[in-house]
Amino acid sequence: MTTDALFAGWIARTEQQLQAALPDPETAPRRLHQAMRHAALGGGKRMRPLLVHAAGHLFDADPALLDAPAVAVELVHCYSLVHDDLPAMDDDDLRRGRPTTHVAFDEATAILAGDALQTRAFEVLAAEPLPPTLAVACLRTLAGASGVAGMCGGQALDIDATGRAQPLDDLKHMHALKTGALIRAAVRMGALCGGADETQLARLDAFADALGLAFQVRDDILDVEASSEQLGKTAGKDAAQDKSTFPALLGMDGARAQLETLAATMRDALAPFGTRAGALAALGELAIHRSH
Amino acid sequence: MTTDALFAGWIARTEQQLQAALPDPETAPRRLHQAMRHAALGGGKRMRPLLVHAAGHLFDADPALLDAPAVAVELVHCYSLVHDDLPAMDDDDLRRGRPTTHVAFDEATAILAGDALQTRAFEVLAAEPLPPTLAVACLRTLAGASGVAGMCGGQALDIDATGRAQPLDDLKHMHALKTGALIRAAVRMGALCGGADETQLARLDAFADALGLAFQVRDDILDVEASSEQLGKTAGKDAAQDKSTFPALLGMDGARAQLETLAATMRDALAPFGTRAGALAALGELAIHRSH
Repeated sequence: MTTDALFAGWIARTEQQLQAALPDPETAPRRLHQAMRHAALGGGKRMRPLLVHAAGHLFDADPALLDAPAVAVELVHCYSLVHDDLPAMDDDDLRRGRPTTHVAFDEATAILAGDALQTRAFEVLAAEPLPPTLAVACLRTLAGASGVAGMCGGQALDIDATGRAQPLDDLKHMHALKTGALIRAAVRMGALCGGADETQLARLDAFADALGLAFQVRDDILDVEASSEQLGKTAGKDAAQDKSTFPALLGMDGARAQLETLAATMRDALAPFGTRAGALAALGELAIHRSH
Repeated sequence: MTTDALFAGWIARTEQQLQAALPDPETAPRRLHQAMRHAALGGGKRMRPLLVHAAGHLFDADPALLDAPAVAVELVHCYSLVHDDLPAMDDDDLRRGRPTTHVAFDEATAILAGDALQTRAFEVLAAEPLPPTLAVACLRTLAGASGVAGMCGGQALDIDATGRAQPLDDLKHMHALKTGALIRAAVRMGALCGGADETQLARLDAFADALGLAFQVRDDILDVEASSEQLGKTAGKDAAQDKSTFPALLGMDGARAQLETLAATMRDALAPFGTRAGALAALGELAIHRSH
């Protein structure tokens, strides 16, 4: 099967599973349920679910086992976007070309919808059909990547750094927590479902860390280059908010060179897995070359 | 051992375990870590951890197994208070006689601290020393009680109902989700750790449901009676916000009669367990007779 066909299948599964994991929009409390669906069914790239499936595919994992971690990591990602967009945080009105959740509904509903999406992520992982030992391993991985040592901690570091210049190492560390941790968790959960050993997990961590950083470097480059229309969110916000970025610290050429280095790191990390790693490699390429 | 001695021991364990579960206030991101500690170590009554331990005690469960669910349910409770107090929600400045988290820190930090406290709750349950099967059972119980079918759903129903009169059944249903679900989960997780069977779990559900409702009826009565000083939070807010309450629907005498009925339900539910249920019974009494 071609990589494109694999991706299309995994995305179709993910959309179906997300639909099923989210509460009925016509059942009370309807406004909360509709806000959760607005936030999670808004046409994201589904990069993290794809990473779960691609990492599982590497070990021929049963796709039915991969559905729960794929949905769970996407729900955590979606909840974080809802809360990051709030007026007290990044104050964004637009996300994926649509009104953000607090704009489409209201702030209280957006806060609650984010909370309930996070809860649902862990509930999905604890449900059938994952065997308890695997469920617990995935829960530890996802919770560790979502909390103070991961995504929430990275967001706090980002807020702390707003309005002042950050050294490159601090910027990398912030992004490793804010977006990198969840990407690493996605790859890890897929690999855990496939029975990966410690050596294999370590290689995949190296791949995922490079991918996570590449994703962010590319994001910063796009923020400089792209118009709001192409990006589907308000562009040029980083500079407007005095946030440190890779282009600001390295220059645009330096940022592009950084991407090349990260591409090489990803290739090296995947080399021992052979052709079966094609899907993961393609996701790495996507992170580096994406235009939105 | 007397009930008071049991409670003192369980509270001491809980405080110690909460301290250990929360991130270091002197490690970056310090502001986030300090906000989480402010929210969770603010001298709550620890009713839910006490219920976990008292329910486990009924079945002679190992207290070391009960620590994780006790801490997890309290972290979920604390996160919900942080978010409920936000300006976009109940807009409360005072909680347990201290500034609420967004007042002591800022809104963005309070949103993140709540998020990270929720994550930590599930992370604690997935950590050692619970065996995987028990961890998954507790995770399902806690997540089910925290999300749209529980606490978050109840909060959404409460917001929907603000400014209009609710029939008694709707008011009960809202509270059953908003506060009752987590109280039921606390009792259930304790009982699960003690190996309770389905019949025993059903009896304890009946006890917990009555306790949860009693807690809320008493809260409404206190809101009418007490001054801000005694209560440690802004009193008379329910009437000011046009929220339906039990005294408003039943009168103060009717609300007190409701408490007596609920006390009888709790006694009936616990009767088959004999004297070993003394600690749970005492917590039921506390819910009914508390003065703050």
